[in-house]
Amino acid sequence: MISKRDLLLASAAGLAAAGLRAAPAAEVAPDMPAGHDMSQMPANWMGKEQIAFLIYPEFTALDMVGAHAMLTGLLGATTHIVGKTRDIVKSDSGLQFQPSATFDECPRELDIICVPGGAAGTLAAMQDDGTLRFLKDRGSRAKFVTSVCTGSLLLGAAGLLTGYKATSHWATIPLLPLFGANATAARIVHDRNRITAGGVTAGIDFGLSLVGQLRDRQYAECVQLMAQYAPEPPYDAGTPERAPREVTKIMSDMFVDFNKQAERIGRDVYPRYRDG
Amino acid sequence: MISKRDLLLASAAGLAAAGLRAAPAAEVAPDMPAGHDMSQMPANWMGKEQIAFLIYPEFTALDMVGAHAMLTGLLGATTHIVGKTRDIVKSDSGLQFQPSATFDECPRELDIICVPGGAAGTLAAMQDDGTLRFLKDRGSRAKFVTSVCTGSLLLGAAGLLTGYKATSHWATIPLLPLFGANATAARIVHDRNRITAGGVTAGIDFGLSLVGQLRDRQYAECVQLMAQYAPEPPYDAGTPERAPREVTKIMSDMFVDFNKQAERIGRDVYPRYRDG
Repeated sequence: MISKRDLLLASAAGLAAAGLRAAPAAEVAPDMPAGHDMSQMPANWMGKEQIAFLIYPEFTALDMVGAHAMLTGLLGATTHIVGKTRDIVKSDSGLQFQPSATFDECPRELDIICVPGGAAGTLAAMQDDGTLRFLKDRGSRAKFVTSVCTGSLLLGAAGLLTGYKATSHWATIPLLPLFGANATAARIVHDRNRITAGGVTAGIDFGLSLVGQLRDRQYAECVQLMAQYAPEPPYDAGTPERAPREVTKIMSDMFVDFNKQAERIGRDVYPRYRDG
Repeated sequence: MISKRDLLLASAAGLAAAGLRAAPAAEVAPDMPAGHDMSQMPANWMGKEQIAFLIYPEFTALDMVGAHAMLTGLLGATTHIVGKTRDIVKSDSGLQFQPSATFDECPRELDIICVPGGAAGTLAAMQDDGTLRFLKDRGSRAKFVTSVCTGSLLLGAAGLLTGYKATSHWATIPLLPLFGANATAARIVHDRNRITAGGVTAGIDFGLSLVGQLRDRQYAECVQLMAQYAPEPPYDAGTPERAPREVTKIMSDMFVDFNKQAERIGRDVYPRYRDG
């Protein structure tokens, strides 16, 4: 189904996210097996999605960048990094990002809106009227309303998960019902047009699976191979069930204050945006 | 071996990278199992590493951010995002990063220097005298000289891999001997103080394994659990061997031009920095 030449030309424009410019067709190595002779790339390989990632002070960079690396592999898509203003936004690990658009500048009609998580910064965003109104507005019309990690709590505070199954960072899943969601322990939870992913690194799995949904399996496999996504975690402690008991306890303890504050926000803030 | 209180206090300062503020000890949930009563955190859990990540135009953001997310979990470490100047640096997926230090401002003595990869941008950096001299200088004294993806070719161009085993993005491994390295197909290759990782997502595995080496297993497991790093790739195409043959061919074809240009740099540029 694929014209190699068309694919390469298209890739040159769009697959930059995956990290490499396409080779001109004339330069394909002669020892490669012969390519397809179809003259057209599958029509569904070229899209025109409008994708927005929210960023806010103290968000977790890898939540966003993992999903972003996969979704920017979508040929033809346009991606916006949306901040409240154009000021530099500092992540919770100290990375400094320049937004490409403000709330006002972000397109009104989005195919995908994606909200990363964090800790103190997420709690602050969950109480920020401008942020919640922006999410509520774009989320009300977006084709996919998505989150990584505790970003689901921010979606929830904006009233966007009421009546939906959703997940979050493992330590915060029990908070979801405070925001009207049906808490579901899974790495990716898809309910109608809501897609929520688990903690931090789950954004890569979420992004790649959405690429497969928006294009097709072979396309997603290309993106996966380009990112060499064949993980080999050096330890086996990535879930509270698999981690040693003491490790799970140490990390659970670190969420006590976060969870208390999120509970308060669920009581005090969420009802205003659920109904508003 | 761990005082929960000390851990939490220390974590509040340093584990922010992993995404959450520590709970004050007094607020630990009463239904948690009783903590340790040791009064000291293991001495080796607190470090003072100086860590620098190079960024340059058109680098691949996830190469850097994956490793950064793990290494900033090191309590006490200081991390620098180093650009040639303080100007915003745009990644190959369009993310815009503000460097925290210039080449001149970067500490002279580093514990870790880490170089992400890319495509056109990496080829340009491999021919930029200022970048190569910076890498050669800091790399000559750094405790660990490391890379993700095609970042190894940039280390190589600076003469830093001569005589070392190393890896790179799967499609560029055969280029390594042009830069004096012993090409090795593995997700992470560790030879003396050089650590090179494979393509893009391998940076997470590299970063987490180095956390374990610099602290200990339990510490790294805490970082892994915080990042919920229990990957569930939705497809199984992350290596050229596992991907369908057609997928591997499409992606290999995309590297033809990159590889030709890198070969030329290996001939023309590398010898000057190998010996200089």
